[in-house]
Amino acid sequence: MKVNVSQGPTYLNEKHLPLIGAEIMDNPAATPELVDHWFKVLADHHMPLARVFIPSEKALCRMDWFFAAAEKYGVGISATLGGWPSEETGNWIRAVVERYKDSPALDSWILMNEPGQAPEPSQQALEKFRIWLSNQYNSIDALNLAWQKQYQGFENVDYESQWVEGKLFTCPVPFLDWYTFWRSHLTWRLNWIADQIRRADSNHPTHVNPHALIGNLAANSIDLPAWRGFLDSYGASCHPSWHFNLLGRDQFALGVAYVCDLIRGAAGGKPFWITELQGGNNTNSGSRPFYPYPQDIAQWLWTGFGSGAERIIFWLLNNRTFGGESGEWSLLDFQNQPSERLEVACKIASILNENLGFFQNAQPVEAPITILLSLETMTLQERFERTQPVNSVEKGIATRLEGRGRNAHLLAVLAYYEIFQQMGIPVQIQHIHDFDWTGKSRLLILPDIVALSQEQAQNIEAFVKNGNTAFITGLTGAWDPENRFWALTSRFPLENLLGATLKEIRTVEPGACVHLTDPQMAVPAHLWISEIRNFTAEPIGSQDGQITAVRNRAGQGEVIWIPALVDIAAWQGDNRALAAFLSTIIAPFTRDLPFHFVDQQPCCVLRVLQNGSSYITVITNGTQQAQSLQLQFPVELHPKILWSDGSTLNEAGEVRLVSRGTVVALWR
Amino acid sequence: MKVNVSQGPTYLNEKHLPLIGAEIMDNPAATPELVDHWFKVLADHHMPLARVFIPSEKALCRMDWFFAAAEKYGVGISATLGGWPSEETGNWIRAVVERYKDSPALDSWILMNEPGQAPEPSQQALEKFRIWLSNQYNSIDALNLAWQKQYQGFENVDYESQWVEGKLFTCPVPFLDWYTFWRSHLTWRLNWIADQIRRADSNHPTHVNPHALIGNLAANSIDLPAWRGFLDSYGASCHPSWHFNLLGRDQFALGVAYVCDLIRGAAGGKPFWITELQGGNNTNSGSRPFYPYPQDIAQWLWTGFGSGAERIIFWLLNNRTFGGESGEWSLLDFQNQPSERLEVACKIASILNENLGFFQNAQPVEAPITILLSLETMTLQERFERTQPVNSVEKGIATRLEGRGRNAHLLAVLAYYEIFQQMGIPVQIQHIHDFDWTGKSRLLILPDIVALSQEQAQNIEAFVKNGNTAFITGLTGAWDPENRFWALTSRFPLENLLGATLKEIRTVEPGACVHLTDPQMAVPAHLWISEIRNFTAEPIGSQDGQITAVRNRAGQGEVIWIPALVDIAAWQGDNRALAAFLSTIIAPFTRDLPFHFVDQQPCCVLRVLQNGSSYITVITNGTQQAQSLQLQFPVELHPKILWSDGSTLNEAGEVRLVSRGTVVALWR
Amino acid sequence: MKVNVSQGPTYLNEKHLPLIGAEIMDNPAATPELVDHWFKVLADHHMPLARVFIPSEKALCRMDWFFAAAEKYGVGISATLGGWPSEETGNWIRAVVERYKDSPALDSWILMNEPGQAPEPSQQALEKFRIWLSNQYNSIDALNLAWQKQYQGFENVDYESQWVEGKLFTCPVPFLDWYTFWRSHLTWRLNWIADQIRRADSNHPTHVNPHALIGNLAANSIDLPAWRGFLDSYGASCHPSWHFNLLGRDQFALGVAYVCDLIRGAAGGKPFWITELQGGNNTNSGSRPFYPYPQDIAQWLWTGFGSGAERIIFWLLNNRTFGGESGEWSLLDFQNQPSERLEVACKIASILNENLGFFQNAQPVEAPITILLSLETMTLQERFERTQPVNSVEKGIATRLEGRGRNAHLLAVLAYYEIFQQMGIPVQIQHIHDFDWTGKSRLLILPDIVALSQEQAQNIEAFVKNGNTAFITGLTGAWDPENRFWALTSRFPLENLLGATLKEIRTVEPGACVHLTDPQMAVPAHLWISEIRNFTAEPIGSQDGQITAVRNRAGQGEVIWIPALVDIAAWQGDNRALAAFLSTIIAPFTRDLPFHFVDQQPCCVLRVLQNGSSYITVITNGTQQAQSLQLQFPVELHPKILWSDGSTLNEAGEVRLVSRGTVVALWR
Repeated sequence: MKVNVSQGPTYLNEKHLPLIGAEIMDNPAATPELVDHWFKVLADHHMPLARVFIPSEKALCRMDWFFAAAEKYGVGISATLGGWPSEETGNWIRAVVERYKDSPALDSWILMNEPGQAPEPSQQALEKFRIWLSNQYNSIDALNLAWQKQYQGFENVDYESQWVEGKLFTCPVPFLDWYTFWRSHLTWRLNWIADQIRRADSNHPTHVNPHALIGNLAANSIDLPAWRGFLDSYGASCHPSWHFNLLGRDQFALGVAYVCDLIRGAAGGKPFWITELQGGNNTNSGSRPFYPYPQDIAQWLWTGFGSGAERIIFWLLNNRTFGGESGEWSLLDFQNQPSERLEVACKIASILNENLGFFQNAQPVEAPITILLSLETMTLQERFERTQPVNSVEKGIATRLEGRGRNAHLLAVLAYYEIFQQMGIPVQIQHIHDFDWTGKSRLLILPDIVALSQEQAQNIEAFVKNGNTAFITGLTGAWDPENRFWALTSRFPLENLLGATLKEIRTVEPGACVHLTDPQMAVPAHLWISEIRNFTAEPIGSQDGQITAVRNRAGQGEVIWIPALVDIAAWQGDNRALAAFLSTIIAPFTRDLPFHFVDQQPCCVLRVLQNGSSYITVITNGTQQAQSLQLQFPVELHPKILWSDGSTLNEAGEVRLVSRGTVVALWR
Repeated sequence: MKVNVSQGPTYLNEKHLPLIGAEIMDNPAATPELVDHWFKVLADHHMPLARVFIPSEKALCRMDWFFAAAEKYGVGISATLGGWPSEETGNWIRAVVERYKDSPALDSWILMNEPGQAPEPSQQALEKFRIWLSNQYNSIDALNLAWQKQYQGFENVDYESQWVEGKLFTCPVPFLDWYTFWRSHLTWRLNWIADQIRRADSNHPTHVNPHALIGNLAANSIDLPAWRGFLDSYGASCHPSWHFNLLGRDQFALGVAYVCDLIRGAAGGKPFWITELQGGNNTNSGSRPFYPYPQDIAQWLWTGFGSGAERIIFWLLNNRTFGGESGEWSLLDFQNQPSERLEVACKIASILNENLGFFQNAQPVEAPITILLSLETMTLQERFERTQPVNSVEKGIATRLEGRGRNAHLLAVLAYYEIFQQMGIPVQIQHIHDFDWTGKSRLLILPDIVALSQEQAQNIEAFVKNGNTAFITGLTGAWDPENRFWALTSRFPLENLLGATLKEIRTVEPGACVHLTDPQMAVPAHLWISEIRNFTAEPIGSQDGQITAVRNRAGQGEVIWIPALVDIAAWQGDNRALAAFLSTIIAPFTRDLPFHFVDQQPCCVLRVLQNGSSYITVITNGTQQAQSLQLQFPVELHPKILWSDGSTLNEAGEVRLVSRGTVVALWR
Repeated sequence: MKVNVSQGPTYLNEKHLPLIGAEIMDNPAATPELVDHWFKVLADHHMPLARVFIPSEKALCRMDWFFAAAEKYGVGISATLGGWPSEETGNWIRAVVERYKDSPALDSWILMNEPGQAPEPSQQALEKFRIWLSNQYNSIDALNLAWQKQYQGFENVDYESQWVEGKLFTCPVPFLDWYTFWRSHLTWRLNWIADQIRRADSNHPTHVNPHALIGNLAANSIDLPAWRGFLDSYGASCHPSWHFNLLGRDQFALGVAYVCDLIRGAAGGKPFWITELQGGNNTNSGSRPFYPYPQDIAQWLWTGFGSGAERIIFWLLNNRTFGGESGEWSLLDFQNQPSERLEVACKIASILNENLGFFQNAQPVEAPITILLSLETMTLQERFERTQPVNSVEKGIATRLEGRGRNAHLLAVLAYYEIFQQMGIPVQIQHIHDFDWTGKSRLLILPDIVALSQEQAQNIEAFVKNGNTAFITGLTGAWDPENRFWALTSRFPLENLLGATLKEIRTVEPGACVHLTDPQMAVPAHLWISEIRNFTAEPIGSQDGQITAVRNRAGQGEVIWIPALVDIAAWQGDNRALAAFLSTIIAPFTRDLPFHFVDQQPCCVLRVLQNGSSYITVITNGTQQAQSLQLQFPVELHPKILWSDGSTLNEAGEVRLVSRGTVVALWR
């Protein structure tokens, strides 16, 4: 795919071809011959990319077998480093880089495996946190005021378990600071590793694969856009059996598409890969045991490439031989022979190769619609989760209420993402602190962004006034990132924009709805519905004499505000009412889309790549039931089927998908 | 209401008027003007009482704004202190008291917020525990025998985690002693604070608001009657969203009534308040998110005043601005403007004011029926909970069995309380260690009081023989407070009284019943049914050849004994059989009641105040469905409706209650 | 029953009569008179065996009362010792043994109560573990390689919490070693106690009662066969309310039978007892509160004796008076009088006495069918449980999947055991490391034995080739005991035997089946179905073009391999398909059985004892519903009913069992 990287390494700039690869896992039973066999298998199956883990210095001689075999078969190696900053780690990294940087097989460096972790009180972290605090607060008095403490100086700040607990509900700031710091701390670590590499090798690109991306990113200290300075490409681990716990079996292609759009959104135009994709059965490891059938493999690969992924690397080519993943995850069977999963990957690799002309300069089609993600919100919701009994209790029986849990904002994001996918409308996922506020004619969705800074609010306001539309839901803007309630400490920060403000929040019973008047419809809401104090906006929802939704013109733009969890209700139950409401506002933003579904299609996903006037469409059915749908398409184009598994797509845009089916067409 | 406090502070003796107030919460955004506004709001809404939290000495200057505003608007201030006994705490308390004791706005001192906590091993507690033990046991040998230990002396007793665990099931005494001690320790703390106040101010009354009162009181070291010596009035925090976890949504008025009757029973004639009542939505805090609709506010206020509460103070007037309760709990909306909840409170305040003549000397009507509470039992059941897997297990699937959990006795108490409320019969709740054993013609209910001392048993026996009736259920009297099984160590302590003894306990399957013969009925029983060895009693229940219930004449009294958990079964399922059985024995105790329901009314509550020959009745419907009922009333009286929300009550005593409705009538 | 103990103590050799006894529990309220009463009760009820706990040296004088009373009434005493090896413990044990060894009442020594515990890091254990490691690994380098560590020497190995956690999934060996060591450590402890006894008394037999036997034995360090050297008889605690959590209410007789067959299988011809059998209601203790009705007592006793138990000792004769078991578990009621449970035990004791001629030389009938148990597998599955979230997750909702939990192998074992019991076919339970590989014409079942050593695999192969049949399921043989995946490190160890190897494992959805072709049937499979790479075997199952089951001739034997969890699916749901399949292979192994059920009988158990040409049959119905069944029996024999509770058995072998009924017949 076409990527603009002005000054990146030669290798990367030259090859932006779609590529399938796999991790080759060294193990005690491996011999040079077996290593040779693995690389030959990759080459034979049109998957000329191996990811490997670099071992400790003592074992590097084994790694030489890998590079030798890679060179022999023309397979690239993407090598994974790691470690916490230290002299020892630096020496090891530089030694590795020196050893392999001139190998023609060397493709790229992966800084470490799966960055992302909960804050933990290492000495290194604590020392850097003290500096971070002194930069943040300037004076110890300011810190003491914010933290309700009596420190003599920043050097006296010692770790306390309440930094990660919710016990002191009147004192959330240490928690919030610690989590915020840790994002920068993890970023610093990655940057440090990239530095070590760059000292010895300025030629090969850097990459990294964060994990657990369908989860609370702040809980794992992940700030994707912050890594852009030292990464040449972005990546992700993407395993249904580890990372899709919030999804159902029918939503796996949706999950792959979401992960792609999330990292693409953070990558700022740099290429992205799926760095780990489940290659075989997970038996004893993972939170959900799962066997990826060939149809799953095809669905995930096509969804990934249809989303613009440059490379997709399976975890694993060959099974681990011992420990908790032994005999799991692999594209090879227990005799090191190709599985049905490898065969399907090979077939798709061939199709990619046959269509390189299209893929090399293809770009994903995208509607001018952006769903915003907020790490401050995820931080605050992680804190909310810890301040409260997780569950609601009635007559001693507990129920989980997602709306006040750590995933509330994320589930709201997913709700919109899923609705748009079911409509076949590709949207952008962006971090709010990374969003480009200069555009026009865009629909911006702010779903339950409960922590909003003054600056963010001002950006939103200016953006809308500049000729954009915003759709704002949940308790967006209720608190600032330090858990102060905006309306009570100064003023609701979106008041100017909305011509209205938040008056009250009301917990509602299951089954409650927001009653909209324009259009007339009842949209289910989870957990709470807010009352609006209206100044100059146009009420579009009211019940029991209270205004619950408004629309407002602002400058050259417009804003729609429903301060209720209509999104989580849609995610958990029936999303048709919310989809119907969205339909009334998205027309201006979707009319230029060359392809979309005519109707809402549950559990279907559409991905579209464009290269000039040619397109590739990928359509998937996540369910076990066959599905039929009608595709809207440019009448002048004609489809050529690139991939089908019994599913069909005809000249009239009629699509029939078999159980868990995928159909891929090239339109010219 | 009329209260007999011979030597209390002037202020308290002069004003026993029903009063609604609210906590005003200081926060960083507060200015003198905003504080002034809050007090003005209270005054304007006929709620001339503010509760406040006294801050640290440094911040007392801010508190001056509060007193100034209170004086300006004629609002009283009930000031909350706190802290563990120490020289520093003493200095601070006395400084605060000196500073405000002469303010005309000062109404009363609240010793601390929400006393009640699980035993914890502070150094202070440990040192006092050693003294407590030496008083309890006299010799270290006696302690060693009871504890199965080898201490050299009391000073060698160091904290061990098994004091709060259930691991050593053969050695329960350290656990039981530690919990028993802690009740006296918390009492000592409260008394110490009261002392500090009294040194500087003998004029203003003292008050305190325990919390979590619908729960295992022993688990939180709460011994309400023990506080009588240093309190001028009793209080309670009473939040459905924190404290009613054992109740369903339809039982909130029932819960408010129960909390009132519990603290009234402990107060020994002193006035009582609801010191905290939920004023607004709780969003992220609390175990059950809940918005109190105006109908809820009205139902709770009327239930509270109808139960004899002198004052009801909302938590909060104004929202907290930061932290885990920010934007929650408040009577004001996010613009500091009155909410629908404040408006309804204001209306009720006006009605109270219009009827001061009635209220000033009114007393709750009460049938001569007492349900006994036992802290020794709660202690032992807390221990039971910890000795066992909480759940019952079958084929790997766990089920919670309340009958052997920490709340068994409490749920049995609630079962009777609810049945009586559904009949419209007001009953007394008393701690067994505080009960007055000298009365006559009273029905005493002992529900699953599993830990009974010899002295308590003797009191019960003498009480019955003196011309009272006792209804005894569950495993009442099975163990002594140190977990010794009475029948095996000496003799079942109620044997003389009952003319029978406990022979065996049998676990039964769900759906089991006690089969009564007089009257003929099957009463569902939870978890176990006991067999009785009968000597001289009259069997009234038998099955499979075993006697399971008896009735016995004793002196001038009578006792009915069903050693099965008929109460918990009634609480969890259908309570009509138990209610029907109770109906056969309560007639002598209810015939003088001026008002009651003609039939059992699920989820309805009746509260009656009397002033001479005038009455006020409060009738509530907890359910979402409308309900109709027939009220029994003195034929010579006529109702005047004081409050209705669409519900009706006519001259014939026909009552129709709308969904969650409340109707209040004055009868003359 | 007849037992071959060549050199055991006199006492044991002389009396192999079936005997019922009970634990007499000392307590503070006991007096010499009460102790006398208890022993008299035992004697009067034909239960001349008391088990007692020996107290500390100071309290031994009280124990003298017990021996005096035992001597007076001719009751034997089985005395329970205990303690961890130390000089102090040794002195105490020898003092006790010296004191009582010459009492004519002394029957036997029980080494300690309920051996069995999770590994814990005592100093003693750690020191012995270092020695164990040095024996296991010889060099510290070998240990460092296996453990991924850098120890300088074995003396530097210090305890780490990851030895019992699953955190480092790439490094399972420390966990596996620690658990393996602990089995030998517990064995050492028991042996040490036996040694102390033997120093003072070579005359009285030794015994011990492990507990939690229907559970993961490795989690509790229990290696039953390893104890044979120092035990004269085996025993078990067998309480439905503590140990049958994996069973349903209808499976209690099945559980008793299983425990008997398990310890009988481990005892190697030595006698076995049920050392603890629940005697009365458990109220606050235990994981499942349960009252054993007389029918339960009868069912358990008859099932135990019908399984060949020599003695069955109730827990307890008399209630504990204090602590968590006070007023529980007892055969006496709360007045120390005989209960209905004691009466039924007494009746059965009389029947045993009337039939001593039969019982003295009776042996349980057994089909040549063995189900193998693997402690290495239980160890590995305990580790699996800890490496993973216990539950599978979909849309945030967790489900427990037993197939990858700590009980997977055990549940598979139980599935076969239950099916055979439902057919009335008695089978052997044997530990794989204790199995006698020299036999012929036996059916060996290897259910999900996921950890298999090379030696074990070779034994299986030789055994089959020698003229036996093996039925192998689940992931048997997938890993070695150190969690290395066999097929990937060398070769699947059963490949020679099977003429086939494991190709892939596939997680399947609930409801999936293995499709067998010979015979044609669909057998439900839990969690996963494996694909077989076939070389020379005969495929007997295939689906989607993959072979999923094979049969193979090997030498003079045959093996059937279904590498899917058909057993756990049968255990959890409908087991009729698996039973039907088993029926097709068991005919050669069951044709010599004198008795079995004609059809599969859910929840029924058949136990058969043989003495020459006479038999006793015990048939139980675990369900609340009456059941009818047809018994296959030798036509020349005629039944005489020894025990019935309304159930009937006639000359035609027609059996009608009342709810939870038991019928016992003597056939001659």
